[in-house]
Amino acid sequence: MTRPMRALRVGDGTTSLVEVTAPEPRDEALVRVVLSGICNTDLELARGYAGFRGTIGHEFVGVVEEPGGGALARGQRVVGEINAGCGACPRCASGDPRHCPARTVLGIIGRDGAHADLLRLPARNLVAVPDGVPDEHAVFVEPLAAACAVLERCPIEPGERVAIIGDGKLGLLCAMALAPLAQLRPLLVGKHPAKLALARGVETALVDDARRRGRVFDVVIEASGGPAGFELALDLLRPQGTLVLKSTFHGATPIDAARIVVEEIRVVGSRCGRFAPALDLLARGAVDVAPLISEVVSLDRGEDAMRRAAAPGVLKVLLSR
Amino acid sequence: MTRPMRALRVGDGTTSLVEVTAPEPRDEALVRVVLSGICNTDLELARGYAGFRGTIGHEFVGVVEEPGGGALARGQRVVGEINAGCGACPRCASGDPRHCPARTVLGIIGRDGAHADLLRLPARNLVAVPDGVPDEHAVFVEPLAAACAVLERCPIEPGERVAIIGDGKLGLLCAMALAPLAQLRPLLVGKHPAKLALARGVETALVDDARRRGRVFDVVIEASGGPAGFELALDLLRPQGTLVLKSTFHGATPIDAARIVVEEIRVVGSRCGRFAPALDLLARGAVDVAPLISEVVSLDRGEDAMRRAAAPGVLKVLLSR
Repeated sequence: MTRPMRALRVGDGTTSLVEVTAPEPRDEALVRVVLSGICNTDLELARGYAGFRGTIGHEFVGVVEEPGGGALARGQRVVGEINAGCGACPRCASGDPRHCPARTVLGIIGRDGAHADLLRLPARNLVAVPDGVPDEHAVFVEPLAAACAVLERCPIEPGERVAIIGDGKLGLLCAMALAPLAQLRPLLVGKHPAKLALARGVETALVDDARRRGRVFDVVIEASGGPAGFELALDLLRPQGTLVLKSTFHGATPIDAARIVVEEIRVVGSRCGRFAPALDLLARGAVDVAPLISEVVSLDRGEDAMRRAAAPGVLKVLLSR
Repeated sequence: MTRPMRALRVGDGTTSLVEVTAPEPRDEALVRVVLSGICNTDLELARGYAGFRGTIGHEFVGVVEEPGGGALARGQRVVGEINAGCGACPRCASGDPRHCPARTVLGIIGRDGAHADLLRLPARNLVAVPDGVPDEHAVFVEPLAAACAVLERCPIEPGERVAIIGDGKLGLLCAMALAPLAQLRPLLVGKHPAKLALARGVETALVDDARRRGRVFDVVIEASGGPAGFELALDLLRPQGTLVLKSTFHGATPIDAARIVVEEIRVVGSRCGRFAPALDLLARGAVDVAPLISEVVSLDRGEDAMRRAAAPGVLKVLLSR
């Protein structure tokens, strides 16, 4: 029995809300999406990045409609890890499908995403949302997990000096997460006082002010997504410091590689994170994501919402059902 | 009392062997150079890199002429660590002047170098050469130490799969050093069968053959000095692998930074190394550098020697006195 649903799809340079056939659960779980968040990656996929064609969206909170063989019951509120591995390779066998060479990724690689009424994921990818976490917070688990993932790839000791470059969603989430996660007091560096002010309790600086501090940071997290952020990071890092790259800026970025060698910098790429630490931060109220929500728009207005999400000064746009 | 000496100097885009006043020891040691080696960095300095003006050369073996307050006696055969720190900052206090912000570097930054009859260095920079190591081997201590330095910045476990990109001097030295230093069996990747053959006992591959092995290497060491080497490294590395950058390629290098993020690659810059491990390798005959010597030329023909060192197929050119 096929049934129709709404889906925000990209392909051939267009983004359209269309009616499609709802997915069959087959051997996976089926989730009815309650709220989904528009990520910069969605905007890049809409511009043709990586040649993805299909339903975009990978940040969501929803309700289990078909458990797909998993332990979570129908009606359970869930979020979902977005990398779906083959389940058989050494990476998957170790419990981490994020680098499975045959993986699909929700709304990014080979798998329709969350800006729709229903989505499908392996049951093992779903994680129950604690009752105390409202939908508007739970929808941030995926990007907050990506922020927490910095510490998976780059353990940072209390007392180390950390700067975060970028006052967009990713930079703000990194800034908010590092204090409660690792007793760190990062400096958030950006260009927009109004955005910087959203990182309550976090020390902030405009770009020129940060540069005037000199090369004193042990770790710099690049979350601005531009080549200028990379260069600024090198200007802030001490010799033998660590630059964590969070943003997937696209195309060839001109980088002064000689500086990496002469200063013996360590550059560490960091992508998706585990959901458990992020859910824990939300459940204990250690991170307040509410100030990051710029607008909540109905999925019916998904095309408008994508334009809004790309507008200057706009942070997270959520799509309601 | 001033006395004249020969020196190979660069500046304003020219390289000239000239007669200059020999350095006074002041509070440093004075060394009479016996043999010096031309490095690719010398060629880059001659092209105007970093705006250096003065006597080039930083690979040498010589004899102490004035001990400069140090423990080594007149006539002692020595090599010298090239970074001369301020002696007072925290970096220097920890015994490692390689990142002292006020450092000078022999023949590279603010200090005349080794392609001359005499050079000056702090006495603490000098290291005695064991009797069993001939001059023609000892002159390789500095670049061999740079090869060994890979392991300072990137410890590699036996059993990890390592590839080295570049069949020039630096790549060959890395390939030769890693087996005896760390029980590693690296794959040396290059474009020139004749050069690859110089790495005796090391497995080698041409670029296309290496690429066909797929992304299976835990660590890739980039020693080719070109953007193509960086890209090849990313093609050989497994996800979450480590790319060690040894070559100081200059200017902005176009790098696909998104790959570093998506594959969560670690890029580690590595520059100068400590001399002790390199001298030890030479003293116990664990590395045979002799096949890397293309020519030995008198310092009087220093300008010619620089041209020879830049010619295709030529490896190390040594300057004799």
